[in-house]
Amino acid sequence: MTMIPPSLLPEGLSDRLPPQAEASARLARRVLDTVATHGYERVMPPLAEFEDTLTQRLKSMRAQDLVRAVDPVSQRTLAFRPDMTAQVGRIAATRLRSAPRPLRLSYAGPVIRQKASQLRPEREKMQLGAELIGSDSNAAAVEIVNIAIEALTAAGVTGITIDFTLPDLIDALAAGPLPLGAEELEAVRAELDAKDAGALVAISPAAAAYLPLIEATGPFHAAMERLEAFSASLDGAIDSRIAGLRAIAKPIGWDITLTLDPTERHGFEFQNWFGFSIFAEGFIGEIGRGGSYAIARAGETDEPAMGFSLYPDPLIDAGFGDERPRRLFLPVGHDAVRAAALRAEGWHTVAALADGEDGAAQRCSHWLDGSEPRAY
Amino acid sequence: MTMIPPSLLPEGLSDRLPPQAEASARLARRVLDTVATHGYERVMPPLAEFEDTLTQRLKSMRAQDLVRAVDPVSQRTLAFRPDMTAQVGRIAATRLRSAPRPLRLSYAGPVIRQKASQLRPEREKMQLGAELIGSDSNAAAVEIVNIAIEALTAAGVTGITIDFTLPDLIDALAAGPLPLGAEELEAVRAELDAKDAGALVAISPAAAAYLPLIEATGPFHAAMERLEAFSASLDGAIDSRIAGLRAIAKPIGWDITLTLDPTERHGFEFQNWFGFSIFAEGFIGEIGRGGSYAIARAGETDEPAMGFSLYPDPLIDAGFGDERPRRLFLPVGHDAVRAAALRAEGWHTVAALADGEDGAAQRCSHWLDGSEPRAY
Repeated sequence: MTMIPPSLLPEGLSDRLPPQAEASARLARRVLDTVATHGYERVMPPLAEFEDTLTQRLKSMRAQDLVRAVDPVSQRTLAFRPDMTAQVGRIAATRLRSAPRPLRLSYAGPVIRQKASQLRPEREKMQLGAELIGSDSNAAAVEIVNIAIEALTAAGVTGITIDFTLPDLIDALAAGPLPLGAEELEAVRAELDAKDAGALVAISPAAAAYLPLIEATGPFHAAMERLEAFSASLDGAIDSRIAGLRAIAKPIGWDITLTLDPTERHGFEFQNWFGFSIFAEGFIGEIGRGGSYAIARAGETDEPAMGFSLYPDPLIDAGFGDERPRRLFLPVGHDAVRAAALRAEGWHTVAALADGEDGAAQRCSHWLDGSEPRAY
Repeated sequence: MTMIPPSLLPEGLSDRLPPQAEASARLARRVLDTVATHGYERVMPPLAEFEDTLTQRLKSMRAQDLVRAVDPVSQRTLAFRPDMTAQVGRIAATRLRSAPRPLRLSYAGPVIRQKASQLRPEREKMQLGAELIGSDSNAAAVEIVNIAIEALTAAGVTGITIDFTLPDLIDALAAGPLPLGAEELEAVRAELDAKDAGALVAISPAAAAYLPLIEATGPFHAAMERLEAFSASLDGAIDSRIAGLRAIAKPIGWDITLTLDPTERHGFEFQNWFGFSIFAEGFIGEIGRGGSYAIARAGETDEPAMGFSLYPDPLIDAGFGDERPRRLFLPVGHDAVRAAALRAEGWHTVAALADGEDGAAQRCSHWLDGSEPRAY
């Protein structure tokens, strides 16, 4: 058999080997177990859908970002999912349309896109999360944020930072108390993204009114005070959003770092009033994201929803969650009943297939000597 | 927003909803946990690879069976995996080429193909399994078959039947004691598949010599006796295979039904001396398959291996594994510490987001009245 040079995988697609593969599966399992105890039930959407069905629920996704293939059955274009949230929204709006609300759903699986992002070279990544469908209230946000924290903590993630944002704040201000023209609005957005106070003020006097938002960024409590002062200067125009953020922050434990970046919009293309990013100490880039959004339904108004998604691959790549089991070598002719009992106690056993095998080479710390594990 | 009619998924691709999605995840988890205790370590290959890398390890797969897409980075054709065993073989032959043998690996994930099979309409299915790389001995077969049974039993599957086969038996006989021409060989295969004794005998006198194999089919012990008589008539030509089957069958418990179909080849295109199919009472079609095979390695002889794969979707579709958790409704203002304690005891809680929600409509059997769950 002629062999092509080994293991040349496409750019951005890779194998996960032991022990990282197990760590990845374990993290997913602990997160899903935690959200399940809060009543979230699992759904498993397919890897691919018709491109048009999928893209109409992916506001920020362009068709060229998707891995596509022609379906030989229908002759229509299939697209592989770049995100599972849109699929969960589709399920809620169609097959589970008549299920009682609020509807709590969880999911986990691989997602794939055509090209990698600048930050991460991977085209395939694991996504898991939970969606609360039927409400985008403060109470829904409290539940979602706190379950995300609880789930990550249960999975062993420490040094968690939650960064709050108000994704549609600028649109709401521009349509209300601080009017902006369309071009002005784009310029204001760009300078708020860049946190460039000088450039913001230089746009126009109307744009300069947005300056306090650059200051209302950073550690949560100080930033919130500045945001409150800004709202007061606008006759309390955003007081309800501030009250929402306060309500969400209130039950969060002292061990979680809270920050505010009220104008952050990257990654929040489909969220509306509330969004949050999740970071973990020692890892570059966010490991999760969530917030409020609306699910389109045929012939009805959009349905409010709140959810979070985790993308834990960067954690795993950095060696997070490497818990090695104790490995016990079982020589030929070992006591099989005893071996089963030791497995039930937590040992992972490695049985010799033939005499002369070396258990230590198989990374076993012990071998079964009669009925007792003995260290090598 | 204009909506396309809801939920029109491509043929053969579907959503798994609660409770089936959870049952599927639970079954996979229990199987993987069991194989892990026997020293099998998890690998996670990517959803897609270069088509040529993938197909060279998929002996029975034609390119048109694969879902393919053009890779914009390399301009080469990507193919989505229709099977994970070939990927595990690639990992063993490349990145884990220097790892000590025997090498034990496990895997789980979705696989997808271009067209459904006649038996099952699904194009996407879950595959999970374990591969033992470095040996295809009787001892390796004993380990693999028994771990497959143990894993399915741990997952709650009952009424298991294991059907043994000898995939390369006809080739070995035709190349040895019972010579056949190439056309004769194909005709013999076809009639053995059809179990058509009359047609087999009619092919040629040489073909008629294969007649005893049709009789050596059915319940294990009776079929083995006929297979032994057949071997004896050939001066013990297949005694070593018979000894192998006896060794594999010996440790299998009385609660497992064993059958033999020594010429079965459907689904065993890449196995050599040994193969087995797994059935579960009440479910049509096999739920798993395994056996011995060889892994191609660049610049070296093939490496022997033994493994099994499970395809549990038919079980799940039939309602297997529906274990409903106890759901407890938490009214507004409930005792959060008590609720957490009840979750730790196994309750799944559903917290009210607002006054007036109906816990019973949320399928809760109980609600938290003070500190105690009270039945509705």
